[in-house]
Amino acid sequence: MAWEYLQPVTIRFGEGSVGELEKVASELNCKRGLLVSDPFFVKSGLAQKIVAGSNGVLVDIYSEISPNPEVREVDACAKLIKEKKVDFLVALGGGSALDCAKASGTICFTEDSICKYHGTGEVLPKQHLPLIAIPTTAGTGSEVTCVAVLSNKELGKKGPINCNNFYPAVALIDPELTYTLPPYMTASTGIDVLCHALEGFWSKGHQPVCDALALHASHIVFQYLRIVCKDPSNREARAKMAEASVIAGMAFTLPKTTSSHACSFPLTNMLHIPHGEACGLTLDYFARINADAQNGRIHEFAKKLGFKDMYEMADAIYDLKKEIGLRTDLKEYHLTDEQIQDLVDGSTHPNLYNNPVEITKEMLQEMYQSMR
Amino acid sequence: MAWEYLQPVTIRFGEGSVGELEKVASELNCKRGLLVSDPFFVKSGLAQKIVAGSNGVLVDIYSEISPNPEVREVDACAKLIKEKKVDFLVALGGGSALDCAKASGTICFTEDSICKYHGTGEVLPKQHLPLIAIPTTAGTGSEVTCVAVLSNKELGKKGPINCNNFYPAVALIDPELTYTLPPYMTASTGIDVLCHALEGFWSKGHQPVCDALALHASHIVFQYLRIVCKDPSNREARAKMAEASVIAGMAFTLPKTTSSHACSFPLTNMLHIPHGEACGLTLDYFARINADAQNGRIHEFAKKLGFKDMYEMADAIYDLKKEIGLRTDLKEYHLTDEQIQDLVDGSTHPNLYNNPVEITKEMLQEMYQSMR
Ligand SMILES: NC(=O)c1ccc[n+]([C@@H]2O[C@H](COP(=O)([O-])OP(=O)(O)OC[C@H]3O[C@@H](n4cnc5c(N)ncnc54)[C@H](O)[C@@H]3O)[C@@H](O)[C@H]2O)c1
Ligand SMILES: NC(=O)c1ccc[n+]([C@@H]2O[C@H](COP(=O)([O-])OP(=O)(O)OC[C@H]3O[C@@H](n4cnc5c(N)ncnc54)[C@H](O)[C@@H]3O)[C@@H](O)[C@H]2O)c1
Ligand SMILES: [Zn+2]
Ligand SMILES: [Zn+2]
Repeated sequence: MAWEYLQPVTIRFGEGSVGELEKVASELNCKRGLLVSDPFFVKSGLAQKIVAGSNGVLVDIYSEISPNPEVREVDACAKLIKEKKVDFLVALGGGSALDCAKASGTICFTEDSICKYHGTGEVLPKQHLPLIAIPTTAGTGSEVTCVAVLSNKELGKKGPINCNNFYPAVALIDPELTYTLPPYMTASTGIDVLCHALEGFWSKGHQPVCDALALHASHIVFQYLRIVCKDPSNREARAKMAEASVIAGMAFTLPKTTSSHACSFPLTNMLHIPHGEACGLTLDYFARINADAQNGRIHEFAKKLGFKDMYEMADAIYDLKKEIGLRTDLKEYHLTDEQIQDLVDGSTHPNLYNNPVEITKEMLQEMYQSMR
Repeated sequence: MAWEYLQPVTIRFGEGSVGELEKVASELNCKRGLLVSDPFFVKSGLAQKIVAGSNGVLVDIYSEISPNPEVREVDACAKLIKEKKVDFLVALGGGSALDCAKASGTICFTEDSICKYHGTGEVLPKQHLPLIAIPTTAGTGSEVTCVAVLSNKELGKKGPINCNNFYPAVALIDPELTYTLPPYMTASTGIDVLCHALEGFWSKGHQPVCDALALHASHIVFQYLRIVCKDPSNREARAKMAEASVIAGMAFTLPKTTSSHACSFPLTNMLHIPHGEACGLTLDYFARINADAQNGRIHEFAKKLGFKDMYEMADAIYDLKKEIGLRTDLKEYHLTDEQIQDLVDGSTHPNLYNNPVEITKEMLQEMYQSMR
């Protein structure tokens, strides 16, 4: 078996590590930066505090970022980057803020809208601003991945752009920043971690370094996600989930995600289910479908986590979702046949073809029907 | 808990991947290289074949490299680098050839002997030649580490130099290259992999990414080292051990090795025990000493590998060594009291202080006495 591995991001993890921002920037030889921040941190005042404490290194804040960031937000951020003539970016927020910064930091070197590269296969130019990524959810792992997921409301389209430019220079992970995340978003972003680990593991592009990381991250999710949802102020559980998030990010960025992420795109687009919950919704379903594939290695994974096999692990995923208050079906939406068909059609995203078992439209139809 | 992670080496793994050497060099923009090769591959003709097939990119071979390479060999290699005016290095061999190339590729930018930097704490200059590292043992993991271990026979000294320069640009891992490794060297280098994993895990500098990788590598060693020693032509087992070796390399290069590696230096120096066997000799001993340290995480590690606790795993390490024909004591050397004292004194190497439990001279004395 042939495989490759590369992980160019420098990871710095620790409570209070956001305080090292200035030092990190100066180590990167960065002098004039823009803070790309989630609106929550502008409201809370942390964004302004970081700028004020930056000794003039951070010159402005861009914060018009929706959950599931829009292409027009990337273009607006790129415009500000050009105006302010900055030489690096700091992203503070969940996957949405990080992804917006990643895409803006490349597109700012062109006269293009990011639309030109979104779902078109068009290749981005190589130039990009160095990025210090500071995640505040645990989470997407976006701080170590080469992916930016964007939405285009006008075209009703959501999907990732993969580009080596998008690797941050430094991932600065401070678990304390996640303390303010409410229980529901903690649950939703937390189940995303398990999706990244498991999908990275069973992806057709799987490889051993990522296998090892996927196992580590999954172990933590089963051990700590329940705890952190019940007791959001549990510092150990917050730190462990932040650890799982970055390690799951490392576990999927090369193998790529698969079926559950493919299905999440229309679920988020059409039904506005947040990303993590949308991915988690189908995870146990695909776990059952994939269980026997790849010569038993998927069952092996479940066994190493203490389950009898992947079927038992799928049950445990279902139970976990129930317990932390996430949807396990789509009953409340009273979906029409047409909506089901739109979900099916929207799920045939390239990521679907990374799934170890071929997923036909009929299978998707049956799955969505069963959730109705 | 605070930790950092960085792994700048691009890893390419696969049967036959040595055939990609020219492509890899051209991707690195390298034009004129020196092959630093183990004498075995000059004898076998593979070194010459690689040069001949390189389209003129490789211009010469340096191959005077002893197992546990000597400082003077590094200096001689650096001299040839200067003469041949090359812009990159390819290292083909075990840890010895790789380490010689790493050190030569930096020292060639100075007028110094490498001695100036060996065990002196003197800091090497930052400049270095890019290195493509092709390991032929499984093994040291040197292809992904920032360490070069050198010996100075005149001073009776063996020890590592740590330097970020020493990270290869690319690790090209072709398990087929290990097929010619005889059973005894397969056993010795194979137990080194377990030492790297376990020592990286319990090192005071341990951190979660490396923990995950250490577990993966250890799992493989217990599963495949017996097989590959009994049946050296087992392709699957060779590939798995090559995988374990590189992943264990990633697992220890940041946390650093500990007690067993510290003790290996005098064992190799004074008694000429090959590196892996020398490290393995004390591994179960230190596993017992360390078992209860670090709040149970060392027992947890053993449990994840299917053992009751680290004590049971220590027994399994002992059994494994017996079975694959490695020494479990030092009886055959009929050591004098003076020799024991020299072993004790030689073991108080900086790596010893990474051990989770403080190891006193009395403990070393007792250990070496028990092996007598
Ligand atoms: N790039 C990648 O590798 C990758 C991977 C998976 C998902 N994604 C994408 O990331 C996006 C989802 O990111 P996310 O799940 O991190 O959520 P998010 O960034 O969309 O944030 C969700 C909500 O939580 C709030 N929030 C964030 N951190 C908070 C905190 N510490 N305290 C209080 N509120 C906080 C935000 O303001 C927002 O309202 C989606 O677009 C998804 O497709 C990207
Ligand atoms: N840099 C690091 O990260 C690191 C880590 C651990 C150990 N080391 C060092 O590496 C050295 C040991 O390296 P090693 O254990 O790989 O052994 P080695 O490189 O010393 O080689 C041992 C013997 O095996 C032969 N050999 C190597 N590959 C062969 C093959 N495929 N077929 C037949 N013969 C082959 C060599 O010619 C030599 O005689 C020691 O000096 C040790 O301290 C370095
Ligand atoms: Zn996701
Ligand atoms: Zn070693």
